[in-house]
Amino acid sequence: MAEIQEYDLIVIGGGPAGYAGAIRAGQLGKKVACIEMERAGGTCLNWGCIPTKALLKSAELYQKMKHADIYGLSVKEVTFDFAKVIERSRGVSNQMAKGVEFLLKKNKVDYFIGRAVVNAPGMVSITEGEHNGKFFKTKNILVATGCKMRRIPGLEYDGARVMTSREALAGKTLPKSVIIVGAGAIGVEFAYFYNALGSKVTLVEMLPQILPVEDDEISRTLSRALVKQGIDIHTDTKCENFRTGKGGVKVDLVQGDKKTEVEAEVLLSAIGVVANIDHVFASNLKPEIDRNYLKVGDDYETSIKGIYGAGDIIGPPWLAHVATFEAVSAVNGMFGHGTPKRVKVFPGCTYCQPQVASTGLTEKAAKAEGLDIKVGKFPFTASGKAVASAESEGFVKVISDAKTGEIYGAHIIGSEATELIAEYGLAVEMEATVDEIHQTIHAHPTLSEAVMEAAAATLGEAIHI
Amino acid sequence: MAEIQEYDLIVIGGGPAGYAGAIRAGQLGKKVACIEMERAGGTCLNWGCIPTKALLKSAELYQKMKHADIYGLSVKEVTFDFAKVIERSRGVSNQMAKGVEFLLKKNKVDYFIGRAVVNAPGMVSITEGEHNGKFFKTKNILVATGCKMRRIPGLEYDGARVMTSREALAGKTLPKSVIIVGAGAIGVEFAYFYNALGSKVTLVEMLPQILPVEDDEISRTLSRALVKQGIDIHTDTKCENFRTGKGGVKVDLVQGDKKTEVEAEVLLSAIGVVANIDHVFASNLKPEIDRNYLKVGDDYETSIKGIYGAGDIIGPPWLAHVATFEAVSAVNGMFGHGTPKRVKVFPGCTYCQPQVASTGLTEKAAKAEGLDIKVGKFPFTASGKAVASAESEGFVKVISDAKTGEIYGAHIIGSEATELIAEYGLAVEMEATVDEIHQTIHAHPTLSEAVMEAAAATLGEAIHI
Repeated sequence: MAEIQEYDLIVIGGGPAGYAGAIRAGQLGKKVACIEMERAGGTCLNWGCIPTKALLKSAELYQKMKHADIYGLSVKEVTFDFAKVIERSRGVSNQMAKGVEFLLKKNKVDYFIGRAVVNAPGMVSITEGEHNGKFFKTKNILVATGCKMRRIPGLEYDGARVMTSREALAGKTLPKSVIIVGAGAIGVEFAYFYNALGSKVTLVEMLPQILPVEDDEISRTLSRALVKQGIDIHTDTKCENFRTGKGGVKVDLVQGDKKTEVEAEVLLSAIGVVANIDHVFASNLKPEIDRNYLKVGDDYETSIKGIYGAGDIIGPPWLAHVATFEAVSAVNGMFGHGTPKRVKVFPGCTYCQPQVASTGLTEKAAKAEGLDIKVGKFPFTASGKAVASAESEGFVKVISDAKTGEIYGAHIIGSEATELIAEYGLAVEMEATVDEIHQTIHAHPTLSEAVMEAAAATLGEAIHI
Repeated sequence: MAEIQEYDLIVIGGGPAGYAGAIRAGQLGKKVACIEMERAGGTCLNWGCIPTKALLKSAELYQKMKHADIYGLSVKEVTFDFAKVIERSRGVSNQMAKGVEFLLKKNKVDYFIGRAVVNAPGMVSITEGEHNGKFFKTKNILVATGCKMRRIPGLEYDGARVMTSREALAGKTLPKSVIIVGAGAIGVEFAYFYNALGSKVTLVEMLPQILPVEDDEISRTLSRALVKQGIDIHTDTKCENFRTGKGGVKVDLVQGDKKTEVEAEVLLSAIGVVANIDHVFASNLKPEIDRNYLKVGDDYETSIKGIYGAGDIIGPPWLAHVATFEAVSAVNGMFGHGTPKRVKVFPGCTYCQPQVASTGLTEKAAKAEGLDIKVGKFPFTASGKAVASAESEGFVKVISDAKTGEIYGAHIIGSEATELIAEYGLAVEMEATVDEIHQTIHAHPTLSEAVMEAAAATLGEAIHI
């Protein structure tokens, strides 16, 4: 019988929570293993955040080239090779996954491909793959198994006619038409991508607005922009009676009493995620679960001592950067390196064009909490950089305390919104006021001046509106 | 005789200092006039920051289109109409200048085109243009006359063979070849622009590095990138013996004992600026001057009571955003709205590709001050967003106190560096530490994660390197 390996930490899952937690433990000089079922980087890196950004960049540039005359430029025959667009995206994921594998090695993390099971506190085994039967003893376990795409009950996902984002990311041809069910970040990004390349896109959302978690003014502005780009948007709308055939997919869109049939070559389902919780624990091991997510305390420990959870498996917001933060915090805590911190405020991004990004409270949420707020806004049409770049769609909106000026939330729609939100992220973290943002000299000409002017607008001191 | 108009404030100059100061006084309910010789917006908006950004955007997109295959896209016959590229840039300036004129009106600022002279404290007259002979009484005067391009002594600037950036911004045709004298931000941006469109560019700098004010590691990295793009760079090099003829311009480049003759269709002179100080004051009025700049105190008041200065006219760093800040601060102070603040830290940007941006101390400057520092770095090759965008050139470098972690300076070279620097601007303003940047959740995948990871690297806690 093989020798039993002993660890300080075994991390189950190699996604943004798992690999980051394992690397952090490695940095702390701990003996650590990471067990991943598929590929280092997890969904984010292989089938989510990263490959979609590669696709979106191609789509953006395609659109820019089609309108190159705006910039005094001209081109003939702007075309794309869809297979190459996808191939590039897969290549980016592959490169980054290799990078993570390198980082694991560099930080002396033992990395195993296989399905892991927690047999008992301090005991993990691998039940599938080349390491099948391997058994480990460990002081700590971090469960970071993440989530997978939620599926519409009763609908057959064949990966061709009916897909999740995962199949879409590997699709060989551009569908002529597509119905996208769900207008969260994933649904909206694919809607932008397919439409930008010329597909006929129908985007359906059950809730009253696209990007339901975003500020409603931002959502309305984005909706108008996407409709103008040619996307057919249906909010407050349910999908019923899915019919798939050789010709494509038919769905009934039900909005109140109104029922409309739509048809498309493919259907992309983007209705959220479900936890990868099944088979993680031996059947006699029952950590506390909350709505199918692993319940953890302030130190990320589950109800079973020595077993921790981080990332999507402990519940929303299902964001890679939150997952990474949680895992690093959990690991720091378990090895006595500072006090673990639960996540309260985090940025969220959608990478369509115009981009959407936010952090903290929406105007509606702040009011619902009974906070006495002021709202400052600044449009990119008044930004010299935005106008010089011919990218002046959108605005910055900041929510702050009416008396103290402390920033509760910020919301940006426009070019580079996903980068601009970083400053507000730091502002919220540092409990900065709108006056402090206003008193910080921002480089001219930059889009970040709009971040400052929105803060100044709160005080009635914006110069450029 | 016409009635003498009386004001709370007369601002001389309608650039980033002048118009901002005037608008701020308007916001404070003061009776204010702004006298501008040429066009609202000043050099920045009409002949500097703004029109160059329009040109650079065209050049960037042209380069992107030429390499569209990277993104799975293809085009035939990528061309540009130089006159249209210039026309768009002039159009952007015109639009923004109109915007400023509108803002002046909206804030009830009386706006005059003309040359203004300060006759005495509280007395200003207009000596040229349609308002010639107009005379004003005023409680306060803000001199914001800015700077103009410095010229090489003995060289004839005909605006065709030998130009400053001003003539270059209105040039009708792309020169086949150009010698650029001076590799500060303006020289480097024009070098990128002309080279990107296909000119043969020789860039000459007297000092040991291009972008002399930037961190030397950043400068070296940029230099390598620009050389790779095809620009011929000569540092530590003086230009002598300028000869202009029908065929173009010949110059001797002198580096130590070495002398090389270079020839080009045009020469662009970008060797800095000189103050617009002549004729601003009546001959009997002698405010204190320091190296040709108006000397001001902590409240921006000159040696003459009631006469203030802000912007380029009070000396370096000759940056629009600093000018605006100074003018607003001066106006707030003169009307009792808070204590005026002199500028200590400010961002600086260069909009070539890769972009360069910085704030605070360079590594060399920090060491020269005897500070005990740590340096944190993170390369964009390790950023998922940068790789997904195929824009992974460059890095982030942060200088902080070895003990407290307080951030002294940050330096970025890469895509969107000019936007990313904003977060470090706030960090320096708020006296944030690298740990506070590290503990702030940054959205994934964004370039701003590199800002965080550089801070984390200082602490040995970067996950992705």
